[in-house]
Amino acid sequence: MNITILFGGSSYEHEISIVSAITMKKVLKKSNLTYVFVSDEREFYLVDTDKINAKLFSSGVYKKGKKLTLKKGGFYSDTLFGSKIVEADVTLNLIHGRDGEDGKMASLLAFYGMPYISPRLEASVLSYNKLYTKFLAENLGVKTVPYEYLAKDDERKIEMSYPVIVKPVRLGSSIGVSIVRDASELDYALDVAFEFDTEVIVEPFIEGVKEFNQAGCYTDKWELSLIEEPQKEVFLDFEKKYMDFARDSQVLEAQIPDELKTKIQESFKTIYDPLFKGSIIRCDFFVVEGEVLLNEINPIPGSMANYLFADFEAMVHRLSKHLPKEPTIVINYQYIHSIQSAKGKA
Amino acid sequence: MNITILFGGSSYEHEISIVSAITMKKVLKKSNLTYVFVSDEREFYLVDTDKINAKLFSSGVYKKGKKLTLKKGGFYSDTLFGSKIVEADVTLNLIHGRDGEDGKMASLLAFYGMPYISPRLEASVLSYNKLYTKFLAENLGVKTVPYEYLAKDDERKIEMSYPVIVKPVRLGSSIGVSIVRDASELDYALDVAFEFDTEVIVEPFIEGVKEFNQAGCYTDKWELSLIEEPQKEVFLDFEKKYMDFARDSQVLEAQIPDELKTKIQESFKTIYDPLFKGSIIRCDFFVVEGEVLLNEINPIPGSMANYLFADFEAMVHRLSKHLPKEPTIVINYQYIHSIQSAKGKA
Repeated sequence: MNITILFGGSSYEHEISIVSAITMKKVLKKSNLTYVFVSDEREFYLVDTDKINAKLFSSGVYKKGKKLTLKKGGFYSDTLFGSKIVEADVTLNLIHGRDGEDGKMASLLAFYGMPYISPRLEASVLSYNKLYTKFLAENLGVKTVPYEYLAKDDERKIEMSYPVIVKPVRLGSSIGVSIVRDASELDYALDVAFEFDTEVIVEPFIEGVKEFNQAGCYTDKWELSLIEEPQKEVFLDFEKKYMDFARDSQVLEAQIPDELKTKIQESFKTIYDPLFKGSIIRCDFFVVEGEVLLNEINPIPGSMANYLFADFEAMVHRLSKHLPKEPTIVINYQYIHSIQSAKGKA
Repeated sequence: MNITILFGGSSYEHEISIVSAITMKKVLKKSNLTYVFVSDEREFYLVDTDKINAKLFSSGVYKKGKKLTLKKGGFYSDTLFGSKIVEADVTLNLIHGRDGEDGKMASLLAFYGMPYISPRLEASVLSYNKLYTKFLAENLGVKTVPYEYLAKDDERKIEMSYPVIVKPVRLGSSIGVSIVRDASELDYALDVAFEFDTEVIVEPFIEGVKEFNQAGCYTDKWELSLIEEPQKEVFLDFEKKYMDFARDSQVLEAQIPDELKTKIQESFKTIYDPLFKGSIIRCDFFVVEGEVLLNEINPIPGSMANYLFADFEAMVHRLSKHLPKEPTIVINYQYIHSIQSAKGKA
């Protein structure tokens, strides 16, 4: 199977996307991988699969590769006598953060009619924005952590008691996130968060909360990963998360009662179906007093959460054969014809 | 000012987009207009502004025009010695329905760094989907008509009493919409709606409800249109709406008390700011027992609701100078550098 890995992007998570992308070489061994890099300038470059490494990008050497143009049906490179398509059975959107998770890549790939693994447009917008994720979960009956919302110009006042956690509404990978232990620290935390976004949400910070991660997708059946209880630090900072994006070997399953496991799986399915069809996502849940709360949806998880699956590659191949399709719209110009007839101009 | 009018699209509203686009010639007289047509096959074509008419598209003659490619900074046509950009100060997204209102065009234009008038990505997704519009309005404290939601495979049962109105979640221009007078008609109305979408909302149908339309935008100040009380038929069917998209002369202002006018204007501003910055939208409100209820957001209204403004063209020019910009993200490869140093590979 020819898989195009699309990575990079104009995103604060550009660099971790590179790490995720390189990790794919270790976990998609039986596939024929093509790497398409989206530079910080949003130009597309073909990257040699044999030579891909992080330094290629930090050094700027990638610019010596072929520039690509996205057109109907795929990526094209210029040739002497026209242009040549980059062969792909499917494109894997691995751009974390802006461009990738916000719905832009989903839009581009859908518009140009390319089969792709990624949350679709609506799913992207609803999961990239943490406030909208709350709306979604609430509507689906999935409980979330309580929250307050603040825009940049709002009065800097919150109702809930400390400690709290402040998160920019639109970023992933803990960028701009702070734990605030008392009111005196709030201002600084908001300054930090508002460096990255115009809106934030504030949630209670629950010390030592049990966290469980569930990834999965729907092919012609549910394909749920094992459930991981991630190693607990206060919370993962950017550099730790960064290294996390290079994970490529399967982790141990969390030892939890069947009842809890079922609750987590059911919450995942409720979120996923039908909005996230076509994507492999990871949901992070908190368990508080026996209740499963959705903490976050990772619409394009680090290294695609490959380490949570027994056979990630086989699942990617199955998913590629079960991607949702946009309905076909036939345009027959019936109304223009009828109006022209009415006008006597037909 | 050079304005590119982007219209057509793979949309049920493809034909009314053509009508809207042609209408722009009559209302943007002082501007230098360039027409870029998105065919049903999602190919871009340059259309001669002097010769544009509806028949050009229904006859397929547009295919004789220049094909364009969207790349960084704009639309390009192939020339003998490379390619040439279509000069534009701003692009006006006039694609109604799918591709235009769903966020795809906003994504493409944002990704390629082109200044554009249109709801941005998030605003598109939240207003194109009538269910998400409910979430949004609720969160902003703007009242809406009560509703029930049904997916295609759900049991066909509703709680509210008849008559009701059944609407596909994602379409505009009354496509797939039915009024249902009693339970015996529900099944057929749902069949019709599910022809166009996998999800519907059902709302009470309020006979003779007062409806008021408010359009506007924010440039460096609020620019609100007059308020129209649209001519009332049971509801506008597709052909009536179609003709509506060709409107180009200013309508009469609704004669309503100042208090109601203020309520409508304030509701509009609450919905618009900040999510819809960069766009000219029209909100349709119902007034029920003195309460203003949001009925619908028209993210790309027919003929841009030009007929509601005293000087539409001047406003378009002002808006073009006050478009929101995506924040710049500087990528310095700091993490890749630091990890390479740690590995001793730098």
